[in-house]
Amino acid sequence: MRKNIRQIKTPDLPLGFRAAGIASGIKKDGKPDMALIFSEVEATAAGAFTTNRVAAAPVWLDKKVMAGGSCRAVIVNSGCANACTGVQGEADAERMARLTAEGLEIDPGEVVVCSTGRIGKLLPMEKIAAGITGLTGIIKAGGNDSASDAIMTTDTHPKRLSVEFEIGGVVCRIWGIAKGAGMIYPRMEVAAMPHATMLAFLATDLGVGAELLRGMLSISLSQSFNRITVDGDTSTNDSVILMANGESKAAIEPGSNGMEVFQAALDMVTGELARMIARDGEGATRLIRIEVRSARTGDDARRAAAAVANSLLFKCALYGASPNWGRLLAALGYSGVLIEEKKIEVSLNGIAIVENGLLLQVQADIIGAKLHEKELDFVIELGLGEESDLYYTCDISPEYVEINKE
Amino acid sequence: MRKNIRQIKTPDLPLGFRAAGIASGIKKDGKPDMALIFSEVEATAAGAFTTNRVAAAPVWLDKKVMAGGSCRAVIVNSGCANACTGVQGEADAERMARLTAEGLEIDPGEVVVCSTGRIGKLLPMEKIAAGITGLTGIIKAGGNDSASDAIMTTDTHPKRLSVEFEIGGVVCRIWGIAKGAGMIYPRMEVAAMPHATMLAFLATDLGVGAELLRGMLSISLSQSFNRITVDGDTSTNDSVILMANGESKAAIEPGSNGMEVFQAALDMVTGELARMIARDGEGATRLIRIEVRSARTGDDARRAAAAVANSLLFKCALYGASPNWGRLLAALGYSGVLIEEKKIEVSLNGIAIVENGLLLQVQADIIGAKLHEKELDFVIELGLGEESDLYYTCDISPEYVEINKE
Repeated sequence: MRKNIRQIKTPDLPLGFRAAGIASGIKKDGKPDMALIFSEVEATAAGAFTTNRVAAAPVWLDKKVMAGGSCRAVIVNSGCANACTGVQGEADAERMARLTAEGLEIDPGEVVVCSTGRIGKLLPMEKIAAGITGLTGIIKAGGNDSASDAIMTTDTHPKRLSVEFEIGGVVCRIWGIAKGAGMIYPRMEVAAMPHATMLAFLATDLGVGAELLRGMLSISLSQSFNRITVDGDTSTNDSVILMANGESKAAIEPGSNGMEVFQAALDMVTGELARMIARDGEGATRLIRIEVRSARTGDDARRAAAAVANSLLFKCALYGASPNWGRLLAALGYSGVLIEEKKIEVSLNGIAIVENGLLLQVQADIIGAKLHEKELDFVIELGLGEESDLYYTCDISPEYVEINKE
Repeated sequence: MRKNIRQIKTPDLPLGFRAAGIASGIKKDGKPDMALIFSEVEATAAGAFTTNRVAAAPVWLDKKVMAGGSCRAVIVNSGCANACTGVQGEADAERMARLTAEGLEIDPGEVVVCSTGRIGKLLPMEKIAAGITGLTGIIKAGGNDSASDAIMTTDTHPKRLSVEFEIGGVVCRIWGIAKGAGMIYPRMEVAAMPHATMLAFLATDLGVGAELLRGMLSISLSQSFNRITVDGDTSTNDSVILMANGESKAAIEPGSNGMEVFQAALDMVTGELARMIARDGEGATRLIRIEVRSARTGDDARRAAAAVANSLLFKCALYGASPNWGRLLAALGYSGVLIEEKKIEVSLNGIAIVENGLLLQVQADIIGAKLHEKELDFVIELGLGEESDLYYTCDISPEYVEINKE
């Protein structure tokens, strides 16, 4: 792999980190529904949160913690989002942090809280409190490997990845887990603080200062979690937490040689986790990559790719393996981006399907076979400039509606 | 009805207008697929067209005709959009106008051409030419009443409405037909020329100058065709044509008393046709009205309503008659509009469902019954200003995906 970054077996956590999952009874089917991630020592941290103005109670709490640039524990529950829950929701999020801090004998200001699940329901705090007691006990005993299971909602499988890389001859690790299958669409501009969508937790034993960590997470998001969409609905709870505890004894400073290696390793983990989310979109049968090239500006490239990636009609056609490329061109046309129809070229998995704005009558058997592949890679040339960008998305099936009719 | 505007039986055409539909064989099932609308005398005209940059060939031709402010005939085919068809598509649109003009013995510059159906296919010009010959023959004999059937694609039923009203004691009429069930979302800003989505044809025997007609159509669109969405996909072919031939011998001038009556009559016809389109959305089971009130600006009100009306997750919940109001609040939150969560109030068909940003636990039987009604009327108060706006939309069912997987 590039820059000697090697994928390693999970749950090989970076040095000084522990993680655990547990079933606390929030999910009615008895599956794991609470997770705890813990750094044995002080860790710097960077956080990225939804820009949805209806942000969940834990998001407000976490932004305060992240302003300090450090944390030692992340407590997460699935099954209930603690969003649109008012003053009681805020109190419940604070109580989750306090109980976790007590169990781990750390400061409540060192605890990040995340929730995911249905909006508008109060957390079942009895179950949550018992779950935290259980989790802190497991963590003190070393942890288990079910954290990635415990954060799932409509995900069909857990999403996790670990890599190792070398900084100054020292082996370091990044471990990441993520969840998300619906209400997935990051439409966020990178502001002073980075933003993200869905839940993802990242830990490294490299030493990185908080400010540098924020900047590198921000860069990484713009090629990963901020470039996926399942349904165009941006969540109230999207959060990414990146912790760096330095326990490998290697460290990077702004401008140091190791920065490039760490950025590449981080991008590999976030990029792969983001693709896992798009691939596991609710009811999805294909992973779809939409790359727009030769756009006039970078923002044009991003907006054009987003319009195609969010087109319900285009995604229905892909579910049916139908070569209805007119829908792709229509989405480009209404994206608001400068295009010249007669300059547009499109290819699918290397086969030209649109040239000079005209749909090609590609041999039915060639294109038919391509359309049934599990990964569809569309490259769109606008022919107007030098900029490119891309989104990952998935098709929309009748099952998406069935999953979400409740 | 307001201002003494009375609905009348269709196909009672306004004086001096004729219309007809015919099956020319474009549609494989043998259903009517071409329509012709004709004014016996010179008529002023206003047109509104999609802002999709991938506009179909006929749209480019029609814009030139409409710049002149008059037309006498509209020739329409369904089953093929003549979009993304390049130079050949342009020649075909021109040929449709020329053949129609020849058959009617008028100037080709007096003919508007519209096409709707699959994108990227060339028109079957042999069938089209024969269809035009047939249609002009029927028109010369007086017409028939199947124009509204002939413009349908995935519509389950034709959409038509006629009203009459009085100007200076003279009875005048507006007749309108429309089509559209998918690829429906008008996201257009009103520019120097008005814009619209889907196909609609409107005829009145009132005398109205071309410039005044354009202005009044523009106003009317912003409460009708530019305020509906089925799937968020804006078409390449959207067109509205309004013709006024003065054959009632009544006329209005800018500033005259009759303006208000005509605007109200026009709004009634366009508004009702637009609602028919939203109600007949592909696979839809409910008509949904999203009104946003007390927004800071008019644009905020429109964008907040559009975000909710286009939320796939919200529309899936409504298909399932599920009171998942968190999805509505999340859509408001990501709309990009200024909101304060704690000020939001929402009602459904008169029952409060959100107060102070909190979802109310409305009695299940009350809300359950409401959710099964065929028309759902959501009123959202943002509590931040004086402005309001609204969209009409529909739910999304598994059938939507089945219809569009090809």
